[in-house]
Amino acid sequence: MKKIDGWVTTPQGFLAAGVKAGIKASGNHDVAVIYSTVPAATGAVFTQNKMCAAPVLVSRKVAAKPYAQAIVVNSGCANACTGEQGLKDAESMQAQAAELLGVEPEAVYVCSTGVIGHFMPMDKVAQGIADAVDAMDESEGESCAMAIQTTDTFIKHAAYEFEIGGKTCKIAGIAKGAGMIHPNMATMLTFLTTDAAVAPDVLKRAVKAAADKSFNMVVVDGDTSTNDSMIVLANGLAENEIILSEEHPDYPAFFEALLACAQDLAKMIARDGEGATKFLEVNVCGAATWDEAKTAAMAIAKSPLVKTAFFGKDPNWGRIVCAAGYSGAAMQPDKVNLEIGGVRLVEHGMNCNIPLESLKDIMEQHDISMKIDLGAGSEEATVWTCDFSYEYVKINGEYHT
Amino acid sequence: MKKIDGWVTTPQGFLAAGVKAGIKASGNHDVAVIYSTVPAATGAVFTQNKMCAAPVLVSRKVAAKPYAQAIVVNSGCANACTGEQGLKDAESMQAQAAELLGVEPEAVYVCSTGVIGHFMPMDKVAQGIADAVDAMDESEGESCAMAIQTTDTFIKHAAYEFEIGGKTCKIAGIAKGAGMIHPNMATMLTFLTTDAAVAPDVLKRAVKAAADKSFNMVVVDGDTSTNDSMIVLANGLAENEIILSEEHPDYPAFFEALLACAQDLAKMIARDGEGATKFLEVNVCGAATWDEAKTAAMAIAKSPLVKTAFFGKDPNWGRIVCAAGYSGAAMQPDKVNLEIGGVRLVEHGMNCNIPLESLKDIMEQHDISMKIDLGAGSEEATVWTCDFSYEYVKINGEYHT
Repeated sequence: MKKIDGWVTTPQGFLAAGVKAGIKASGNHDVAVIYSTVPAATGAVFTQNKMCAAPVLVSRKVAAKPYAQAIVVNSGCANACTGEQGLKDAESMQAQAAELLGVEPEAVYVCSTGVIGHFMPMDKVAQGIADAVDAMDESEGESCAMAIQTTDTFIKHAAYEFEIGGKTCKIAGIAKGAGMIHPNMATMLTFLTTDAAVAPDVLKRAVKAAADKSFNMVVVDGDTSTNDSMIVLANGLAENEIILSEEHPDYPAFFEALLACAQDLAKMIARDGEGATKFLEVNVCGAATWDEAKTAAMAIAKSPLVKTAFFGKDPNWGRIVCAAGYSGAAMQPDKVNLEIGGVRLVEHGMNCNIPLESLKDIMEQHDISMKIDLGAGSEEATVWTCDFSYEYVKINGEYHT
Repeated sequence: MKKIDGWVTTPQGFLAAGVKAGIKASGNHDVAVIYSTVPAATGAVFTQNKMCAAPVLVSRKVAAKPYAQAIVVNSGCANACTGEQGLKDAESMQAQAAELLGVEPEAVYVCSTGVIGHFMPMDKVAQGIADAVDAMDESEGESCAMAIQTTDTFIKHAAYEFEIGGKTCKIAGIAKGAGMIHPNMATMLTFLTTDAAVAPDVLKRAVKAAADKSFNMVVVDGDTSTNDSMIVLANGLAENEIILSEEHPDYPAFFEALLACAQDLAKMIARDGEGATKFLEVNVCGAATWDEAKTAAMAIAKSPLVKTAFFGKDPNWGRIVCAAGYSGAAMQPDKVNLEIGGVRLVEHGMNCNIPLESLKDIMEQHDISMKIDLGAGSEEATVWTCDFSYEYVKINGEYHT
């Protein structure tokens, strides 16, 4: 497996494009289409928010089928809390794209991201879909990625090449993240394409497993959105022997590439958390179960007190230990150890009295890792997050409804 | 029942004082003693944080007894994550206060608040306790309240007078709050005194019930501290007929006064959240159960996206509905209604398209209420919180470890 530079159009047989349809006030790219020239096995996971948006309702039906062929997506309007009209609009996006692409409607996923509670400007959306289908090309992967962004400060894409059964396969993905990032599904929009041949049921389970170890381990502000979707299309054009079960000898290599791509994108989302000045890796070990390790890591990653401390470059380990303490995870207070940037600050639950000046260089860095041992078992989990800055408050206090 | 101006020394037979012992770098009051001239029935609830501080371990044993007589408390150092030495220091504070007051050690509660992970400066603490016991007086209620503050911007106290069985009783309380405020116990320090006569077992249950409807319904940043404690002393000097059970005819009047005092203090804590510019009341109704109503209200109150929106004076109802949606509480998306400041913005899960300018006056106010109907039942719960401002980030980014 090797990392390559690529977009969703890098695997064989995928076309895409993003266009400017005037939905975003900024005038930036806001409608995109991703299309596989042949039907592709598909798997997807969606937000668990009970107020899920209309396009999620439509896309869940697509995900239930074995194969799909396209994704139509817009940014600037979430089409959430829009009732019957919203559902009609999402279905209309699906039907229009299907007709233009010459496929069945249930082969087309629909995704939206942006402000909640506004009806879709359907004239603009329809024109955007028509333009995007016209513009579709192997060279338009970047414009497609641009069209799914909202408050993102950089474009998130990742790609890998891997060999299975003597064939070279590729997998690539794009994501949008920034605010409202929290587990319980993929918690953003992310689309992955691959030319590997994988049976639909195997792919569906693989997507769920990969989401749990990547996007579901990222937290920016603890809010789970109404629109989060992770969609994978696998069109088999690499002509490897199809992976029909998890026991197939090529499954591990395929899953490794899928997970690597998903984790790269997930970390980019944490790195681009709204207003972030730090990328934080929170590793919890010594937990009784993996779930408890994740619970403790999430409590630390979500704590505004921890996040503001890192923004202030203050190694306030008391807040980290405190957050683990209230997480509900089992811990042995007199066995707790904590390291920041590899420097042990707490041993057996007590301050090591390391001069905090000695952490100055670590706290100045953009990427900081912390490791807490709960002393209650042998399981571990890692969560990625960012700090809380003035800029976070500014972005979210001034974002227009 | 009527609200009166008072301190913990307002009920009969209580003395208190706060002194400057030099524990806080600021030089402000930092050691206090509260003393009942006769043994008092007692009830208390403490943090559920597994990394609870040494004084909490000591005070839990006091709370298990039917009667207690004093509280010794310091601010500036939390005595948390301090291991064996911390426990010895807390026990030493207890023993010293007991000796000076002429009571048994197990009649003396110990509380600390401040930075986590530092050992107590015991010379200063010991001198402070000696000075506070010397200074104890009915007129020193205010200095006592000052000595429990950390980042608080105003002193929190409340008092009520109520008649039971022809006798006039008083109840009064003080609290410290600000950051690290979240349910799962009283989530701050608060001490209430009353001269009502109540049996210890009745009082213990009443304290738990009152905490659940007051301090446990407040959230500032979602962090539960290592030191949170709510302690009540009831010395019976009002000479009412002792309340021996919840069935006693005077119990409702007693509980009403206890709850009113606790709710007043709890709301003051939300109002004084670190950096708060808004006081927010979140009412969730139409829930299937009270627990689910509370869960949804807490999700809204803890959401950084909701909190920054109110800071920005933006009626971003999408974030409120979204937070309820991911809370896990049952809801009927097409039956959800939402009001901010009495103005209905969402009906049957859809935008009412109220011009947002019409909410301008409401969003300018300091106190703002919101009400969301989940459409899933008939239970309701109210949570109090504040917004998230630049100042919150500043206070918590610059607070020194």
